[in-house]
Amino acid sequence: MRVLSNQLSEHVDETVHLEGWLHKKRLLGGLTFINLRDRGGVVQALLKDPTEVDKLKGVHIGSILELDGVVVREARAPGGVELHDVKLNVVVPVVYEPPIEIDKPLSHKPENLDTLFEHRSLGLRNLNEAKVFYVRSMLLKYIREFLYSKDFVEIQTPKLVANAAEGGAEVFKLDYFGKPASLAQSPQLYKQVMVGVFERVFEVGPAFRAEPSATTRHVSEVTMLDLEMAFIHGHEDVLNMVQALLYAVVTKVWEQHGDILNDLKAPKPLLKDKFPRYSMKQIHELYAKENQTDMSGEVDLTPDEERWICEYAKQHDGCEAVFATDLPRSKMKFYHMAKDDASALSADLLFKGLELATCPQREHRYDQLKQQMEAAGISIDDHAYQFYLQAFKHGMPAHGGCGFGIDRLVEKVVGLGNIKEAILFPRDINRIVP
Amino acid sequence: MRVLSNQLSEHVDETVHLEGWLHKKRLLGGLTFINLRDRGGVVQALLKDPTEVDKLKGVHIGSILELDGVVVREARAPGGVELHDVKLNVVVPVVYEPPIEIDKPLSHKPENLDTLFEHRSLGLRNLNEAKVFYVRSMLLKYIREFLYSKDFVEIQTPKLVANAAEGGAEVFKLDYFGKPASLAQSPQLYKQVMVGVFERVFEVGPAFRAEPSATTRHVSEVTMLDLEMAFIHGHEDVLNMVQALLYAVVTKVWEQHGDILNDLKAPKPLLKDKFPRYSMKQIHELYAKENQTDMSGEVDLTPDEERWICEYAKQHDGCEAVFATDLPRSKMKFYHMAKDDASALSADLLFKGLELATCPQREHRYDQLKQQMEAAGISIDDHAYQFYLQAFKHGMPAHGGCGFGIDRLVEKVVGLGNIKEAILFPRDINRIVP
Repeated sequence: MRVLSNQLSEHVDETVHLEGWLHKKRLLGGLTFINLRDRGGVVQALLKDPTEVDKLKGVHIGSILELDGVVVREARAPGGVELHDVKLNVVVPVVYEPPIEIDKPLSHKPENLDTLFEHRSLGLRNLNEAKVFYVRSMLLKYIREFLYSKDFVEIQTPKLVANAAEGGAEVFKLDYFGKPASLAQSPQLYKQVMVGVFERVFEVGPAFRAEPSATTRHVSEVTMLDLEMAFIHGHEDVLNMVQALLYAVVTKVWEQHGDILNDLKAPKPLLKDKFPRYSMKQIHELYAKENQTDMSGEVDLTPDEERWICEYAKQHDGCEAVFATDLPRSKMKFYHMAKDDASALSADLLFKGLELATCPQREHRYDQLKQQMEAAGISIDDHAYQFYLQAFKHGMPAHGGCGFGIDRLVEKVVGLGNIKEAILFPRDINRIVP
Repeated sequence: MRVLSNQLSEHVDETVHLEGWLHKKRLLGGLTFINLRDRGGVVQALLKDPTEVDKLKGVHIGSILELDGVVVREARAPGGVELHDVKLNVVVPVVYEPPIEIDKPLSHKPENLDTLFEHRSLGLRNLNEAKVFYVRSMLLKYIREFLYSKDFVEIQTPKLVANAAEGGAEVFKLDYFGKPASLAQSPQLYKQVMVGVFERVFEVGPAFRAEPSATTRHVSEVTMLDLEMAFIHGHEDVLNMVQALLYAVVTKVWEQHGDILNDLKAPKPLLKDKFPRYSMKQIHELYAKENQTDMSGEVDLTPDEERWICEYAKQHDGCEAVFATDLPRSKMKFYHMAKDDASALSADLLFKGLELATCPQREHRYDQLKQQMEAAGISIDDHAYQFYLQAFKHGMPAHGGCGFGIDRLVEKVVGLGNIKEAILFPRDINRIVP
């Protein structure tokens, strides 16, 4: 019966059977120590019997081993226990030297990212590298728990679409049985239609952007959390929900996995349950004043302003999450609701210097929506939009939501420097392998 | 403060505020009754005051209403309560007649599927239609709960890939910044690599098959649960895990949502916690004998055999889920493990007449894998496969898993006749809209 490495402290003085990867091998004062890795972590084993030690000759890191031995307390070993009197069985011998030291994390410096991904399959076997993706899975788990508790229903909408023009970014195009098609940039139109069914819906899935830009913030395939909620009584209801989500999820992951986050040297974020709100205009003005820079020509926030306002809010409000509100009308999508001539009922959620989500109220009035579509150059007779318009023609309540970047959330929670490091196998303009 | 329709029995004799869609309107013995739909369900309201009744003139189904009224017990009303002394506010009036009767489910007959999807945005507002997708979301929730309890880690792998040749079906191709790329048919290679990191992984996501066939079983975009587990001690470990998953999830959804499934007239499946196993050869022989048909030329199971063996197992084993084992070697993929010259260590999970999952053990031995890749016509020097081979070169334990069709699971749990009815916005050879 197999025991996992993280269960050993329950088996002190017992003989146990372990299975895993040879993670590390070293000689120390004439003694052979090996580390065995399994899904519970690593355990250190001390090999004394020359017959057992001999079995490791020519056997490299990554080999699959079975160990039978006695668990003893050993304060200097990882986990406080060690395996003694070990009988070893090499189940799958590895005959090749590893190209990287799996025991040491690969460099995440910008100039080394190619090496990181070239050796991704092995690099992820590093305990800390794996922890990034364990944290990622827990963040998604807690997101779902939060949303279920608020009556959201999870949906899956198609990624192959006739027209992905709603987003604004470049789209990937393909041939769909002789018809032109695109890869969905977001589930925008579908999730709005589904608000007409369930009131509150969310989807976690891939979104595709043919982004020609090579930045630390962009990849061509992202994992998005899209949520949408109806019967709101103002835009503030949307912001409050997104705020409660981020607060709950970050708080919970630190509560439940603070040890892992500390192993990763993740910076614990300063958060309040009410995030400060600054209008775009305020941010431009505050930034200009503090940095003696003229921002009057800027419509969007610059990346530097996004970093700066989060730092400012950290100092002034004790919170590293900020809503930048009153986004400019000129950047408004056809499905957003206008606030006035200058701005939209939309806000960006910034977290530790990075935009995680845009959180608009939607235009739910059929006649107004049709006008906005036509103003955006979309024919309201276009067959691809009929299902969308049908929902509004037959009654849609006030609603809003957000597209929330999961990769960016992981990046900021873990404290990485580039969105790609938060993705197992990222896609950018130069990278479609591995 | 808004109260939901399914909370009303807690507010008898109180005045409450409701918000929702006008779902139905009728005159009965000179009295006006309306049904209001919200995310809790529907509530019936009785309008007597002519001023209030007048507000509904020219106001059609789908209009967004606010109702203030007193909750009274009324056994004949849905939910056992009714709203009286109603004050009504039309928040968003709908001025168009609905093209379908939302109160009545649309026909799911094969010849009416085009109508079903043409009116999808409204048809889903039918309470029973929506319940199909609520059940779907709960099935996915219970799947995740089960897998988390077994130490599986959820991953996200790329859908834009250099080479999707692993599947066998046709792939969608696209231009990726000047390079050829495909849409992933499955996360096969990625999830196997991730077994080297976490031992047990799963992914729920879209998979793309350029299926030119128009059947009740195929669509070009499916939602797949892909799971993979390592350190197995034989193929049987994989089958036992998949069996436990299906058993747990179906049992739980019936326990928790039997009322909804009964509303949908879903047939409660007969399941045992150990599913019968029949080899392909046995099934061919049993079928041939019972149906006086010669099946000796068949490699795969025919759809009719799949239905028949499930019916057979229902009668003989008291279980509507069956494993068809010892799949023929001739259908084996390069990453499967052979059992002998004739068959692979692979089994199909059949449930109520439909294949839900193929559950093979994988070839984990580096040298053997390279041979099988070359035999399948793949160059082992192909850059696109290096990340995959790297994992095996540096140690992979025995492992196996499955690709499990979520849409098909929903179809069979709910008792639908076509995979498309289990998908919000299905994609087939003729359908990319809505």
